[in-house]
Amino acid sequence: MEPPPKKTISEIGRSGLIKELNKYSSWRSEQVVKGIGDDAAVLERNETTYTLISSETFVEGVEFDLTFMPFHQIGAKVISATVSDIYAMNGHPKAVLVNLAIPNRVTVDMIEELYKGIGMACSDYQCQLSGGDLTGSHNAVIISVTVYGEVEKDLIIYNSGARTDDAICITGDLGSALAGLKILLREKSHWQESDDPVMQPDLTPWEYVVKRQLVPVARKDVINLFQEHRIIPTSMIDISQGLIHDLQRVLNSSGKGAYLYQAAFPIDLQTREVANEMEEDVDKYALYGGEDFELMFTANEKVVEALAEHFSNFSVIGKITESKELLEMQTAEGEVVTFEK
Amino acid sequence: MEPPPKKTISEIGRSGLIKELNKYSSWRSEQVVKGIGDDAAVLERNETTYTLISSETFVEGVEFDLTFMPFHQIGAKVISATVSDIYAMNGHPKAVLVNLAIPNRVTVDMIEELYKGIGMACSDYQCQLSGGDLTGSHNAVIISVTVYGEVEKDLIIYNSGARTDDAICITGDLGSALAGLKILLREKSHWQESDDPVMQPDLTPWEYVVKRQLVPVARKDVINLFQEHRIIPTSMIDISQGLIHDLQRVLNSSGKGAYLYQAAFPIDLQTREVANEMEEDVDKYALYGGEDFELMFTANEKVVEALAEHFSNFSVIGKITESKELLEMQTAEGEVVTFEK
Repeated sequence: MEPPPKKTISEIGRSGLIKELNKYSSWRSEQVVKGIGDDAAVLERNETTYTLISSETFVEGVEFDLTFMPFHQIGAKVISATVSDIYAMNGHPKAVLVNLAIPNRVTVDMIEELYKGIGMACSDYQCQLSGGDLTGSHNAVIISVTVYGEVEKDLIIYNSGARTDDAICITGDLGSALAGLKILLREKSHWQESDDPVMQPDLTPWEYVVKRQLVPVARKDVINLFQEHRIIPTSMIDISQGLIHDLQRVLNSSGKGAYLYQAAFPIDLQTREVANEMEEDVDKYALYGGEDFELMFTANEKVVEALAEHFSNFSVIGKITESKELLEMQTAEGEVVTFEK
Repeated sequence: MEPPPKKTISEIGRSGLIKELNKYSSWRSEQVVKGIGDDAAVLERNETTYTLISSETFVEGVEFDLTFMPFHQIGAKVISATVSDIYAMNGHPKAVLVNLAIPNRVTVDMIEELYKGIGMACSDYQCQLSGGDLTGSHNAVIISVTVYGEVEKDLIIYNSGARTDDAICITGDLGSALAGLKILLREKSHWQESDDPVMQPDLTPWEYVVKRQLVPVARKDVINLFQEHRIIPTSMIDISQGLIHDLQRVLNSSGKGAYLYQAAFPIDLQTREVANEMEEDVDKYALYGGEDFELMFTANEKVVEALAEHFSNFSVIGKITESKELLEMQTAEGEVVTFEK
């Protein structure tokens, strides 16, 4: 199966190139426990805890579209997307810094809406807006969010810890954020073609997937549950780029392979309906759709059973194999396909 | 004296608005010692040290111009500009995260050049490149840098500590980065008007100011000197937005006023020559020119005398007064002018 075309940056881009570019930086600080390569940088804090830092940039027209995303939802979403990286290390966000670069067309009212969304999300995730920078931009609105978090040393989970025969688990469902985006883009093009400038699309039938796209929620609840029940997965990552992309990062870091059961993929009925309407393959939504911000974790069978006693909102979608970085999937039809790196 | 017109964002922008927007965020984390309002966020680390975090976004066409700035110099400059905020708190940078958003016209070679500059600057400032994000952009190259630093609790210096009768001191000289920018912009417009596409401007007569604009240096040396000689200023800030803007931040935070002696401003001869060529007032360069990344600090007379025994690259340019937030300056002609807030 081939991945769909990328937005604006080649496949080497997001993780490969960044890692490659690290060779130009030779300084190593003793405080840095883990630099490039995981969801967040890990730094020595005190005897019992690490500091976690992650930063992401969101560009209008690439990561968000002002024609169908109100500013307060953008504010909430950029916070969710960034704190998700801290949860993926089994940590808790404590503070965020937000940098804004805005063109002249953006009014103070709009920025206030953005900050209302930021403030609400910060309250939800219990982290304090603690700084930032405001500058100009000629065209696009640009938002950079940095999150500071903490994790107990005993509880930290890296990408690199997956072990052979671990179950591959995923919270929630896959591909619904992409399904929501498809609906919003379709309605946007209807609106652009229409003579009626105040036309309001009826999004009610698509409420779930549209919400998954516009106001995704980072899985703080899962982390709290893990900690309450002393469950520690062997590896964890959040689904931001898409299942295959993010799983491949885990496999590369862990030096392992994986075998997926396509029939086990958690796909919401509404996501299937969108794919039907679009005449597209819903499995591609599940495999390559990003921005679900669900957690993918690996754990041995016993741990999965223990978790299942307290929590049902996750699915086992495959297992880790010894075959180094080889990613295979048994399709619903029983065929076995191999994914290219 | 009126400030020159702003680039793309109104005066309320950079610090005022950010502070104002903080009202939408009500969550307070116990780890945050100081949030919005200083050069960096201050967080509890361990018994003896604080964590410092600062983040800045740089947008092509606003903060840098690819027609006269090579990528490796941009890489070094964005690091210098960001670590400067850590030095301004009397701390030391330890790690940086760099987010890039790039349009398709940018090649992997260019990004490599950028990262060479980043790597060199990280080595100079002894901090480790520890993470980042790579995404697309439709038009401009956008770089966001987050820096993590540490400071001993006993040594931290806030904006808010200036005391009445403290001397206002500034390292290095003022306005030279702006002078360099003026020369580069003039040469750019000559080149754009010229028929010769490979015309190379002769920048030799302007070497110092051009270097100040293209490859500014954050004052790590000053911080090391302070610590070596146990000198602790009462307040400190780096000159990123311009003397008056940055001094006003210190005065607002400290609830004090200031009286400046214009005749004492450290202005390099080359900066004066640029202003002459441009038929502009060099004092405006010193008052409003940004990006010098010099440190402005306040200290009592005894501390200043002690510092002067070890260090000569600073000037006393005025004193702190009791008059709340009133900023006055005695001009070289003996008049007294007042700056609007």
